[in-house]
Amino acid sequence: MSADWIDEIAWNAEGLAPAVAQDASSGEVLMLAWMNRESLARTLDTGEAVYWSRSRNALWKKGETSGHVQRVREIRIDCDADAIVLKVESVGGVACHTGRRRCFFRKLEGQGGKARWVETDPVVEPGTKHG
Amino acid sequence: MSADWIDEIAWNAEGLAPAVAQDASSGEVLMLAWMNRESLARTLDTGEAVYWSRSRNALWKKGETSGHVQRVREIRIDCDADAIVLKVESVGGVACHTGRRRCFFRKLEGQGGKARWVETDPVVEPGTKHG
Repeated sequence: MSADWIDEIAWNAEGLAPAVAQDASSGEVLMLAWMNRESLARTLDTGEAVYWSRSRNALWKKGETSGHVQRVREIRIDCDADAIVLKVESVGGVACHTGRRRCFFRKLEGQGGKARWVETDPVVEPGTKHG
Repeated sequence: MSADWIDEIAWNAEGLAPAVAQDASSGEVLMLAWMNRESLARTLDTGEAVYWSRSRNALWKKGETSGHVQRVREIRIDCDADAIVLKVESVGGVACHTGRRRCFFRKLEGQGGKARWVETDPVVEPGTKHG
């Protein structure tokens, strides 16, 4: 976990950085999760996305239970080195635990006090579970 | 700041949520910044991205000094309602304070201990400053 390239990341006080998973083909932003040093090292080693689950306080190999692994095509960091982008192939075409293509399936419509979040994406695989 | 749609967001302990700005035309992920309630409300009202600067502890109207405003085409939230995606038109084609198109201009190359971050994007506007 002490490789130079990992140390160049400005991990936050909890040792985490936000990681955006983007579909390598469509460019669609699929999800935002968190990584720590070990999850990023494993992601590079295995070529499949491994995140850090803040709710379970544990490494979270994406797709471990659902089969919806993310094959990583590219890993990027930003100017401040405190955010990560993964370009991934989203196996099965489902990144969200709700069974949708992406977690960002709600869009803001309207203005001011009348704005509301509207679901735009269908569930493509009912009964999908986290992981 | 008490609109229902704002209250539906799971703001973190500091009252913030990560916001990913994505180029509406190219699909490129430009930057990751942070928003609070007021910055998101102003973003919707004005149609241009307003973030929260954690370093300056202040609202940060993107492009206020540089002119590189982000015209917001779409606002999305994820399944957990704790992350935001903005699809934007990046005015001037520069989103990064380094004068690059995007903040994610470094890509990981190589494997294991020999991996390193490599700059892939040219500076298109030298002397650009934050804002």
